[in-house]
Amino acid sequence: MLKKINHIAIAVNSIEEAAKFYQNILGLNLSGVEVVTAQKTRVGFLKIGESNIELVQPAEPDSPLVKFLETKGQGIHHICFEVDDVEAEVKVYLEKGATLIDLKPRPGAHNTKVAFVHPKSSSGVLIELCEFPK
Amino acid sequence: MLKKINHIAIAVNSIEEAAKFYQNILGLNLSGVEVVTAQKTRVGFLKIGESNIELVQPAEPDSPLVKFLETKGQGIHHICFEVDDVEAEVKVYLEKGATLIDLKPRPGAHNTKVAFVHPKSSSGVLIELCEFPK
Repeated sequence: MLKKINHIAIAVNSIEEAAKFYQNILGLNLSGVEVVTAQKTRVGFLKIGESNIELVQPAEPDSPLVKFLETKGQGIHHICFEVDDVEAEVKVYLEKGATLIDLKPRPGAHNTKVAFVHPKSSSGVLIELCEFPK
Repeated sequence: MLKKINHIAIAVNSIEEAAKFYQNILGLNLSGVEVVTAQKTRVGFLKIGESNIELVQPAEPDSPLVKFLETKGQGIHHICFEVDDVEAEVKVYLEKGATLIDLKPRPGAHNTKVAFVHPKSSSGVLIELCEFPK
């Protein structure tokens, strides 16, 4: 079961540059800036209500995000829904015929376990499922 | 001040077709389907936590959404943040140098007052501000 929107990820060239608008105009606070080694990205979070805006930038020249920025430019990259048990969700989605990018959970930011649903199952939206450590 | 993410809007060809994934796989419920005359769109909402997924489809052949779907295909269209006073927000954002699409609030779905921030101010993200009737 989906609990809430954990974050909306926005692909940016520079977290600090992009954060100016979200901090100075919208009044949100940037925190939790860290490198996600497995995805070769650097991320920063701005809390809003029970959710977050995640600014994400490439951390290496061969980060998958470089291609996204080159072809689509800066903008929304994916939505992440928080779940209790990502492995159980993946199993049910596959049984129901959804197409997943990850057939098994893998490590995400902040010690989460994550799995991505392919946009072709969800009307063009890249969806991440994340489970926080208990 | 931003209160929460009210919704993430996803541009789709058909609400009913797109909703199959969000209902049958993700387990969300579709409700509040209505036409927003001012924007020539038809919208439907799927509640998740304190937020919603908004599926939005063109309601007329000359809806601005038709061009979006033709050029970009189905996918995330905008994020909407709920605020107490959209007119006050617009005033502050303009004073601080942000670029807005609407210099004054206009009518949105469910009797809201809304205003859009231009993506060039927000790293490529189309942002809607919405105020619900008191």
